[in-house]
Amino acid sequence: MAVIARIAAVQRELRSLDIPAVLITNLSDVKYLSGFTGTTAYMLVDLEKAVFFTDSRYSIQAAKEVSENIVVEIVKDYAGIYTERCSAFKKILLQPSCSINISSKIAAQGVDIYLDEKDFMQKLRMVKDNSEISMIKEQYNLAGKAFLRALKSFKYETSEKSWAAALEYHMKMLGAKGESFETIVASGARGAMPHGTASAKKVIENEPVIIDFGSRDIYTSDYTRMIYAGNDAEVLKVIDIVRSALEKAVESISEGLVCSDIDNAARSYIEEQGYGKYFNHSLGHGVGIDVHELPVLKSKCDYLIEDNMIFTIEPGIYLPEKFGVRLEQTVLINNGKPEIISSALDKYVYNLEY
Amino acid sequence: MAVIARIAAVQRELRSLDIPAVLITNLSDVKYLSGFTGTTAYMLVDLEKAVFFTDSRYSIQAAKEVSENIVVEIVKDYAGIYTERCSAFKKILLQPSCSINISSKIAAQGVDIYLDEKDFMQKLRMVKDNSEISMIKEQYNLAGKAFLRALKSFKYETSEKSWAAALEYHMKMLGAKGESFETIVASGARGAMPHGTASAKKVIENEPVIIDFGSRDIYTSDYTRMIYAGNDAEVLKVIDIVRSALEKAVESISEGLVCSDIDNAARSYIEEQGYGKYFNHSLGHGVGIDVHELPVLKSKCDYLIEDNMIFTIEPGIYLPEKFGVRLEQTVLINNGKPEIISSALDKYVYNLEY
Repeated sequence: MAVIARIAAVQRELRSLDIPAVLITNLSDVKYLSGFTGTTAYMLVDLEKAVFFTDSRYSIQAAKEVSENIVVEIVKDYAGIYTERCSAFKKILLQPSCSINISSKIAAQGVDIYLDEKDFMQKLRMVKDNSEISMIKEQYNLAGKAFLRALKSFKYETSEKSWAAALEYHMKMLGAKGESFETIVASGARGAMPHGTASAKKVIENEPVIIDFGSRDIYTSDYTRMIYAGNDAEVLKVIDIVRSALEKAVESISEGLVCSDIDNAARSYIEEQGYGKYFNHSLGHGVGIDVHELPVLKSKCDYLIEDNMIFTIEPGIYLPEKFGVRLEQTVLINNGKPEIISSALDKYVYNLEY
Repeated sequence: MAVIARIAAVQRELRSLDIPAVLITNLSDVKYLSGFTGTTAYMLVDLEKAVFFTDSRYSIQAAKEVSENIVVEIVKDYAGIYTERCSAFKKILLQPSCSINISSKIAAQGVDIYLDEKDFMQKLRMVKDNSEISMIKEQYNLAGKAFLRALKSFKYETSEKSWAAALEYHMKMLGAKGESFETIVASGARGAMPHGTASAKKVIENEPVIIDFGSRDIYTSDYTRMIYAGNDAEVLKVIDIVRSALEKAVESISEGLVCSDIDNAARSYIEEQGYGKYFNHSLGHGVGIDVHELPVLKSKCDYLIEDNMIFTIEPGIYLPEKFGVRLEQTVLINNGKPEIISSALDKYVYNLEY
């Protein structure tokens, strides 16, 4: 049922743009529209039908996964889709991430190309339906449980990589297909790198450690928690500021706001505390099939907060050569109010004696 | 040194095309040219210099990783590169995978766009230098060792996912940054899906199991091995055919051949044995920063075999609803002869009593 509604939404968009077809090249969009979870496939959606293309490596998987409302074709030569199939239309809509390799082949057939600058598929996916919400919550529960299990095996004086390996192992043993992104375990001064993926550095007791991780099946999850058992006054102060900023942002959420308002609730507080220039990324992002989706919560973003959006709120303060702090919750907008769906981990800062 | 030589090769290509600059949008190419291992960055290479762009999340990492022969700029707005920076040139070369979102922004500045249809960066990366060969061999040794460790923890009647989790855990504990692709553990009839990633299905004793996996740091590795302890005559026969096909392909390698000759050595043998239609993918692919690189060993591919190419040879036979067999070796071309670099696993078929 979901697939029919989603294809219909694409066709409504085509009608409103007065374009007869769109080539879906973004694999996450293909997954959203078809149910297919393999790594290579395209869809051509016109006003009457949706056709799905993959190659023979995936013929069994496509037959199992792709909705019966979609025509499945196994192709030998993907370029055939871009040329022969698209040339049946006078004009065609292409997604912003579509490669110029594909677009040039279509254009060479005399087809007029329209770039979907607004990326309507991203907007379609921004508001989740019930089946999506339930799959996302499932990933949050799984990843939270895995973290609590992994916590028992984290040891000081072992590498960040070994912590990441343990965490990822537990996510998979609990049923995850994989990580939603490369696990970040950034200890001590490495914490000042917002994207400090786990390294060979050993984690030392009493260093602040940022662990940013998530699990993935069809949908994804995203958590950031800290490990800290020390007493450094500056570390404790910065943790407190980041925690307050996060809570102020969550509390600020209400109907009628736009995304930048929420970013501002956290950012202005961090600025007041004198750490503004050390919070050098946006506040949060939507979570769904991709772990980074719309909306983006940043200083310039005028998306209205809507029911059934799911997004992270993750302020951070990064002090170069010293340490970093980031904390993260994920909220579902439910009747205009934030419902925290990352509560499987009910603390922000853990220690190994948990 | 490597970086200087690589940038110089890009500049030679620009001169031969008579184009003043290329925007490198492919992240693996950025990694190859700069040394940067983060997830977002671009390079603009002109006849005089190479400029590297990333955002503030990566400022510390870029300072550490990017070669000093490259100008590093931290940008707030990537679109600024496509517009302001590229508009300094009358014409610019774009890579085939460059998005139409980027190309349209550049074209809007009045810059003439040339599509690099031949994807010269892929060809540049096809032949490895010594530092690359050593990093690739390191990943092959690591992944092989991890497989032997994991073998001790694989248990029948547990899920394919739990096998994958154990294998990935050992790769990470041995220092891998992650997997080079989603681990395939395809047991019984699932083996007939060439890309059957590990599922919740339990592995049953005496079923043939395909395990296709690899580790990743800056470079990657790729192995396929089977687990089989049964005595089914058809399974044993098919394993034997695939093994012979693989060995015939390896033995066929010599100077003066093109890639399709090697594909043909394996494919014609499998056809003779009556299983031609069940070998429905290409024979192999280059391995490097990406786990799928040039050359592709398929029926139509006229790349000449050259020294210092590294590629897989992985024939398979997939019998729908029954089982699948795939075996894989990776070779380095060394003085015109194949050197097998996947010999850390010196058997094709293992069993759990190993």
